Amino acid sequence: MPRIALIGAGFIGGVHAANLAAHPDVDFALVHDIDVARTESIAAKHHCRAAAHLAEAFDPAVVDAVLIASSTDAHADHLRLAASAGLPMLCEKPVDLDLARATDVVGYVHERGVTAMVDFNRRFDRDYAELQRVVAAGEVGDVYLIQMTTRGPAMPPLSYVAVSGGQMRDQTVHFFDLARWISGLDPVAVFATGSTLVEPRLAEYGDVDLSAVTLRLPGGALVQIDSARQIGYGYDERIEVLGSTGMVEARRHRRGAVVRYGAGHDVGDGMHAGWFERVAPTYRAALDHFVDALRDGGPVGPDLGEALKAQAVAEAASRSLASGEMERVHYPSPRATPVDV
Amino acid sequence: MPRIALIGAGFIGGVHAANLAAHPDVDFALVHDIDVARTESIAAKHHCRAAAHLAEAFDPAVVDAVLIASSTDAHADHLRLAASAGLPMLCEKPVDLDLARATDVVGYVHERGVTAMVDFNRRFDRDYAELQRVVAAGEVGDVYLIQMTTRGPAMPPLSYVAVSGGQMRDQTVHFFDLARWISGLDPVAVFATGSTLVEPRLAEYGDVDLSAVTLRLPGGALVQIDSARQIGYGYDERIEVLGSTGMVEARRHRRGAVVRYGAGHDVGDGMHAGWFERVAPTYRAALDHFVDALRDGGPVGPDLGEALKAQAVAEAASRSLASGEMERVHYPSPRATPVDV
Amino acid sequence: MPRIALIGAGFIGGVHAANLAAHPDVDFALVHDIDVARTESIAAKHHCRAAAHLAEAFDPAVVDAVLIASSTDAHADHLRLAASAGLPMLCEKPVDLDLARATDVVGYVHERGVTAMVDFNRRFDRDYAELQRVVAAGEVGDVYLIQMTTRGPAMPPLSYVAVSGGQMRDQTVHFFDLARWISGLDPVAVFATGSTLVEPRLAEYGDVDLSAVTLRLPGGALVQIDSARQIGYGYDERIEVLGSTGMVEARRHRRGAVVRYGAGHDVGDGMHAGWFERVAPTYRAALDHFVDALRDGGPVGPDLGEALKAQAVAEAASRSLASGEMERVHYPSPRATPVDV
Amino acid sequence: MPRIALIGAGFIGGVHAANLAAHPDVDFALVHDIDVARTESIAAKHHCRAAAHLAEAFDPAVVDAVLIASSTDAHADHLRLAASAGLPMLCEKPVDLDLARATDVVGYVHERGVTAMVDFNRRFDRDYAELQRVVAAGEVGDVYLIQMTTRGPAMPPLSYVAVSGGQMRDQTVHFFDLARWISGLDPVAVFATGSTLVEPRLAEYGDVDLSAVTLRLPGGALVQIDSARQIGYGYDERIEVLGSTGMVEARRHRRGAVVRYGAGHDVGDGMHAGWFERVAPTYRAALDHFVDALRDGGPVGPDLGEALKAQAVAEAASRSLASGEMERVHYPSPRATPVDV
Repeated sequence: MPRIALIGAGFIGGVHAANLAAHPDVDFALVHDIDVARTESIAAKHHCRAAAHLAEAFDPAVVDAVLIASSTDAHADHLRLAASAGLPMLCEKPVDLDLARATDVVGYVHERGVTAMVDFNRRFDRDYAELQRVVAAGEVGDVYLIQMTTRGPAMPPLSYVAVSGGQMRDQTVHFFDLARWISGLDPVAVFATGSTLVEPRLAEYGDVDLSAVTLRLPGGALVQIDSARQIGYGYDERIEVLGSTGMVEARRHRRGAVVRYGAGHDVGDGMHAGWFERVAPTYRAALDHFVDALRDGGPVGPDLGEALKAQAVAEAASRSLASGEMERVHYPSPRATPVDV
Repeated sequence: MPRIALIGAGFIGGVHAANLAAHPDVDFALVHDIDVARTESIAAKHHCRAAAHLAEAFDPAVVDAVLIASSTDAHADHLRLAASAGLPMLCEKPVDLDLARATDVVGYVHERGVTAMVDFNRRFDRDYAELQRVVAAGEVGDVYLIQMTTRGPAMPPLSYVAVSGGQMRDQTVHFFDLARWISGLDPVAVFATGSTLVEPRLAEYGDVDLSAVTLRLPGGALVQIDSARQIGYGYDERIEVLGSTGMVEARRHRRGAVVRYGAGHDVGDGMHAGWFERVAPTYRAALDHFVDALRDGGPVGPDLGEALKAQAVAEAASRSLASGEMERVHYPSPRATPVDV
Repeated sequence: MPRIALIGAGFIGGVHAANLAAHPDVDFALVHDIDVARTESIAAKHHCRAAAHLAEAFDPAVVDAVLIASSTDAHADHLRLAASAGLPMLCEKPVDLDLARATDVVGYVHERGVTAMVDFNRRFDRDYAELQRVVAAGEVGDVYLIQMTTRGPAMPPLSYVAVSGGQMRDQTVHFFDLARWISGLDPVAVFATGSTLVEPRLAEYGDVDLSAVTLRLPGGALVQIDSARQIGYGYDERIEVLGSTGMVEARRHRRGAVVRYGAGHDVGDGMHAGWFERVAPTYRAALDHFVDALRDGGPVGPDLGEALKAQAVAEAASRSLASGEMERVHYPSPRATPVDV
Repeated sequence: MPRIALIGAGFIGGVHAANLAAHPDVDFALVHDIDVARTESIAAKHHCRAAAHLAEAFDPAVVDAVLIASSTDAHADHLRLAASAGLPMLCEKPVDLDLARATDVVGYVHERGVTAMVDFNRRFDRDYAELQRVVAAGEVGDVYLIQMTTRGPAMPPLSYVAVSGGQMRDQTVHFFDLARWISGLDPVAVFATGSTLVEPRLAEYGDVDLSAVTLRLPGGALVQIDSARQIGYGYDERIEVLGSTGMVEARRHRRGAVVRYGAGHDVGDGMHAGWFERVAPTYRAALDHFVDALRDGGPVGPDLGEALKAQAVAEAASRSLASGEMERVHYPSPRATPVDV
């Protein structure tokens, strides 16, 4: 049973802590956060060690793997520490908001040959994983068109959005990753157009709150993605993949399966109010996958190289938003190739 | 192209008139109703002959088949006239509310060897027909259990209900027919219990407005039917058939496929407001079937013998409502066997 | 009861004939086609007059309105004849494949002040009409984004596609019209990109069989449309409209409501095999609307000016497919303004 | 944070252990099972105490509440021990298969005035809880009819079924409880009929594997329940409640929301393969409720008295299966009334 250290005890750290504690094949050994109170609270609840110093979390004598859920700007440092210690790591996305810095740290980890998985958790959504399996198995023939929708329930605070990298890098990037993963293809060009219909001040940052993106894939297949920062009906995402012989769809999720029938209408449960309710099971499933890979030595899901590619599509999409023209995607080349566990 | 006479120009006669006029393989030749104005109005609209006298409608020199949509108490006479004239007939249900009289007239028609189809139109509902096909093809294995729901939008006038024969004979009888047709089995016993929750005065007639019926089929399979005269959300019917290897369901119909998403709920189109909106296409499909049978000489759908059997189940169910005990079903034997076209 | 003449007795003419015959408030008076046998067959079936000469169909002494279902290249002439005779007309789309010629004839009809409705039948789809009503009533707030899907079951013959005007003018144009109608806005710019994945020879005509279109509406709202000439799973179209406070969706139609449950899967009825099964009721509903407008003197649905605008969007989309850039839409100005009945 | 002891480390004990460990407001303090190895395995994984002796688990010095997940025949003893120690308890159902013994122990617990909740976990199903809320809020008016379906994926081993108390006491009892809870009414009479279609040897035990149950509620409302031990399409349960003004339905659950569209059909994800996948979240939700009640002193969900009432309906239903007649329900009276925390 691998001893796993958790770095980060904020909201998402707390989610990971409960999953580590409940997981039948994990010894949740240690937690560390720069906030001592949060660290100790989690340690007490789960009867695990509260590490006062960051170094303890990367000590191979007491841990076998690390789960990096620290703040985004600390990811790069924590990835390097884990790589130096030779510890397999599961890291929240993104590697780093700056693509050049991200490419550097990925090169460093690759050189050390340490297993690293990025928590692109939507790949572990039960439905998206099934969608990918169906497409990869050829059940819809060749991919012709992918339709994606990603819509958040409420505009994040302007202070957050201003440093988020913009809608393409912060929100749509998950679907750039899914489009690549599902199609098995790297987009060659992207057209994006958007508007600031909810928050006009976004325009100061060259950002948008509503956008329509079109990707061209090698061979002529197309992808359409609509992204909205704020909708009035909860949290909504869905994907459909049209192939040469059929179509497969991962439908939007309802909060429940109750229907109330009245005169002239029937009322369903609507969408989840927030993103977390919708995606909570994906964190458990991603952890399952990471633990299985540790045990079996199989490949981890989305590795650091995959994360860079999704980020590269987001860069090109951001350029297209500004230029109003279709832009080519340029993929970075980190120094070495990834190594599986 | 067969020349068809329509007997009856009331509401349902008007429905048949439009279907006869639009049907590509029918010559809508003649209409007759005891109401002269109604007869002439339909004749003018559809450029067909208005028959002043009933006899013209059964004259083999000018018509090849008759569609009997007269009032219920005239059915028996019109069936005999058509049988005497040797004219194939499509007749609205029931044959006669009195089972003994109905058995008599069926015997008469059988002796004449004339094709007669009863317009148990729900068998021609696209979904119920598919359900029957799936079950008959063995796609769910042996039939174990049938669940049926039949719920009307509003209490009919007490004056109507009082002479309707009661909920079993008037409303549930359609589903007794469907249960027989789908399972291919004749129910052996029936338990029914009911209440007067909407219209207490029904109790004076030994009738109910809400009931739960259980049928036992030969071999041990079961049927559950809930029947309601008045519900607050439109018109609702559905069927599911559980078999040894799977299940098949004909889901309730919505008025449309529009969904409106708001905060915490989604609102669909609800059910049809009335029975006619739900079943209108079944009249066209039943006519199609009758016309095909005329042309090809194949068997007509539900014949008069089938109608008697469904009525016999309704008789037993009515007895059970009164006795509070499970009752056996006794099937009548008309004098001769039916002959196909 | 208005006497209506039908011009054209091909496939779609036959559909109109049955609808005219069944319609309770129409006197289906006359039919004309250049093919005499087809004319006489329809006349015999529906007991109406077979007009040997085109002029009879436009004679105000015997008809009150005309339904033009002739071949596309005859539309312009027949529209002029009806306008000259002062007869209200319901005409199949398009007015003319050439936008300049179309603009001319629309000017001519407008000058005569005669009522003319174009049979953009999808506006009379029950669900799309409800979608438009919901949006127009403000039930989803301001329109932010419209997502549309239009996918045909099979590649039309190359001979047809070659003269169809291309995917934008022939297929997507219906959705340009719907986007305008639902949003109440005229698109200002369009980006289109496409591929020839099914029929490579289309490239010779500058045409595509798969495309992704993005429209920008005044104020910044967006429209995404995916169009496919051939899919492997039947006929598929759907629309969703995201607004500032909610979303409304017209879902894809199934052939029926039967579900078969087996181990690990449930099997629904799938889509309609062809376009006609899906849209058949829209022809009846469009005719209803035209007849109501004749009787009440209200406005007809999509008039000739609307048809020109949808066509103008298709022109710009076709240019974008070729240029790879976003193109502005230029709307034509026919000589006069339309007049309602 | 209450210290909770877990009694029982079998399959369902393991489920409770993971839930106790992940729960943010619980100190999972101690585990005991008669199997030492299982006890120690759970203790090691969750860093909690392994109690070698049963008495430790009921020691108020080290625990604040107990979760009883031992084998059915030990429930009564463990309930008495917890009551003696004054420890609030959450106990798996049933109290005891023998209604008289169950009534006795409930009387004992009531006399001690200790909080006791029975884990009728389906009440904590998100959808059933919403159904109950909707009905209790009067959103469908007065209850007229409840339709329930409970169908298991596979025949349990004959050895189990033989001692299970039969289909009514073992399987349908959950829905007797739900029917009471949702309607707020105690059934007055029950009719049940069943068959042995899957396992003929059940007849030796007077048991069935398929049944149709009808309950009459005070005032005339009805309940229909179909129960099947083995179906070929996974695990299936659903409920609908027809009221005087509307209807509310908790639909059957699919494994996921993926749909695959092919020619003439669409394939969904089907039902869960087993009961546990379907109901897993209900154990977490029941624990949440118990922990909230401990903290707030509010009423616990289904108490021991409720468990007795559901069992009494099952007794009457079992009698009806044998007699073929409608049977009245006789409710037991334990010695004292329950006391909330």
